[in-house]
Amino acid sequence: MSDEIGMKTSAPPVAMPTAEHERRVRRLISALRRKGLDGAFITSPVSRLYYTGLESTAGTLLVDVAEGPVFVVDFRYILMAKRAMPFAKCVLQRAGMPSQVVKSARRWRKCGYERRESVEAFERLKSNLGTPRDWTPIDDEIAAQRSVKSPIEIKAIRKAVAANDALFSRVFPQIEPGMTEWEARGIFRREADVLGQGEAFATIVCAGRNGAECHHEPDATVIRPRDTLLMDFGVKVDRYCSDMTRCAAFGKPSPFYREIYSIVLDANRKVISRLRPGMTGKEVDAIARRHISRTGYGDAFAHSLGHSLGLEIHEGPNFSPAEKREIKPGMTITVEPGIYLPGRLGIRIEDVVLVTDKGCECLSSTPRAI
Amino acid sequence: MSDEIGMKTSAPPVAMPTAEHERRVRRLISALRRKGLDGAFITSPVSRLYYTGLESTAGTLLVDVAEGPVFVVDFRYILMAKRAMPFAKCVLQRAGMPSQVVKSARRWRKCGYERRESVEAFERLKSNLGTPRDWTPIDDEIAAQRSVKSPIEIKAIRKAVAANDALFSRVFPQIEPGMTEWEARGIFRREADVLGQGEAFATIVCAGRNGAECHHEPDATVIRPRDTLLMDFGVKVDRYCSDMTRCAAFGKPSPFYREIYSIVLDANRKVISRLRPGMTGKEVDAIARRHISRTGYGDAFAHSLGHSLGLEIHEGPNFSPAEKREIKPGMTITVEPGIYLPGRLGIRIEDVVLVTDKGCECLSSTPRAI
Repeated sequence: MSDEIGMKTSAPPVAMPTAEHERRVRRLISALRRKGLDGAFITSPVSRLYYTGLESTAGTLLVDVAEGPVFVVDFRYILMAKRAMPFAKCVLQRAGMPSQVVKSARRWRKCGYERRESVEAFERLKSNLGTPRDWTPIDDEIAAQRSVKSPIEIKAIRKAVAANDALFSRVFPQIEPGMTEWEARGIFRREADVLGQGEAFATIVCAGRNGAECHHEPDATVIRPRDTLLMDFGVKVDRYCSDMTRCAAFGKPSPFYREIYSIVLDANRKVISRLRPGMTGKEVDAIARRHISRTGYGDAFAHSLGHSLGLEIHEGPNFSPAEKREIKPGMTITVEPGIYLPGRLGIRIEDVVLVTDKGCECLSSTPRAI
Repeated sequence: MSDEIGMKTSAPPVAMPTAEHERRVRRLISALRRKGLDGAFITSPVSRLYYTGLESTAGTLLVDVAEGPVFVVDFRYILMAKRAMPFAKCVLQRAGMPSQVVKSARRWRKCGYERRESVEAFERLKSNLGTPRDWTPIDDEIAAQRSVKSPIEIKAIRKAVAANDALFSRVFPQIEPGMTEWEARGIFRREADVLGQGEAFATIVCAGRNGAECHHEPDATVIRPRDTLLMDFGVKVDRYCSDMTRCAAFGKPSPFYREIYSIVLDANRKVISRLRPGMTGKEVDAIARRHISRTGYGDAFAHSLGHSLGLEIHEGPNFSPAEKREIKPGMTITVEPGIYLPGRLGIRIEDVVLVTDKGCECLSSTPRAI
């Protein structure tokens, strides 16, 4: 990304080939068929984006197992929808719930729906369709499909992670004692607009003890000359997310800080070297948790080890004590052990890994040593 | 805001006094009591923010009609929660659904919940509580409370709208033919970080005919020397949103463009001069719709006239043909008539008004004439 230095703004997100979305819809149809469904309503913004390629605040994708996809959307998006989905029937939605939706889904007896949608939206859908039907949530099927990234998605995530490495190497030298956390965060935000299409989530910058509040919102806290910093940031490139946490110190950190840092770093490294496809998310989480517990800081590692990422910053499966899903090649997941000691310090070291056939590849390349 | 020119980043959002949130919770308790509920679960991020003052990705606010508020949140937010809510009991949530939640709500027979939450979250809540209860959605009560802004909220929204006026006067002179829509949008984004705490929503910039796609996503379209522009943008200040749309032309616009522009402008002005509290949202919408229909372009005004705004960019009530709710003093609502003629042009003129005892005050002060 280095040739972009000096540019004021990145390029707009590059659209994926429509064939990618067509393949995704085809795979969804297979999954629906395996579940014995006649069709499904795709209504959440991120699922709409995943299957249509269109970023929109409205629209319903009806996936008919027998007849294929129909995208119903109002006039604000209909022109864009037709460009994005040459493989689907695009129908203009007029006021209220379109009779077209009801018509298309009339024959469906067994309907898939997204449980991630609001109670309100689901009840409206049911009442608009009238006839009672048999409703089955399909969130798990969609999540399973989205969790294993396609080659084109892996390329996009590699690009986003590389841009995030570039972001750190460009921002960190600009952060100086005397600045507030908020100002440091502002630099991340500005550069994320140059190296990609903005932040993947609100950047976290914690000075000193604020690091112990692991979701601390950057505020007017001034970074002092010998402070340590915790920075958690991600840039979006072509709609895909990256995520990284680095800790750094101005001046030489205390021996205690270095001791905790090396525990967290070892936990991160152990996971990356031992992770294998076929493990469950719980088993991967346990690699870090066991290591940290053995040092006596188990209670201070109070969050999960990691989360998948893609179009969203938080996707499944996770590396967590509750995760029973199997880790598979093609998944992109964060590895982010941490130790938080309120009033003292907070340390987290986070990378993105791509699960491979034999283990994993760490996509993040920013050095992890202090 | 002019004294901020030259600064690289705004200040972080100023927190409201905790007394404001305490009052909000007290009013919610009254509303719950009127509905005969024993308590309610506040779980959506924006409602959590509204009642606690804390921006968080997790946490449950239990509002017990008899015993007051209990905020249950995990270790990432517990310290911030205690600072934000001296008036509430803050309880540390450990792994999974906390027994504390179950314990606090044990006596509730009639429970309020947010229908805007996902089917999944609601089902998890029900299953965690075990004993079957009587569930009542309280979204309408929360929306009604949030729709009438408190003096301190009105002050925040005035500040956000003034910052948005400043944003336009600062950005527009920087936009030049030869730039792409995406680059122009980048300027809005950067300056929104300087004049406030970033965009309230993704800025829309449409060059020429792209204006007819009223939710057009800025892309690599180059702004040509005699193009018209449609810009829809908002800045967030102290967590409150602003929203404005302006159309402008490089060079002299065509007579046809001017004709349509003046129809839309008249619609905007008519609404602002005739809006009265006590009208329904439908009646206000009709002022603009009647005017545009009379000119023969009724079908080309295919969206609602406006939406309330506050912590969220889209709140209720709306100015729309379907809105039966009454418009009351203290509401802050957009007035944004538009005419979209695919392949030709798109024009929208949007201001934010504050409903007063006798009519409304237009908070936006950017000139509306081309």
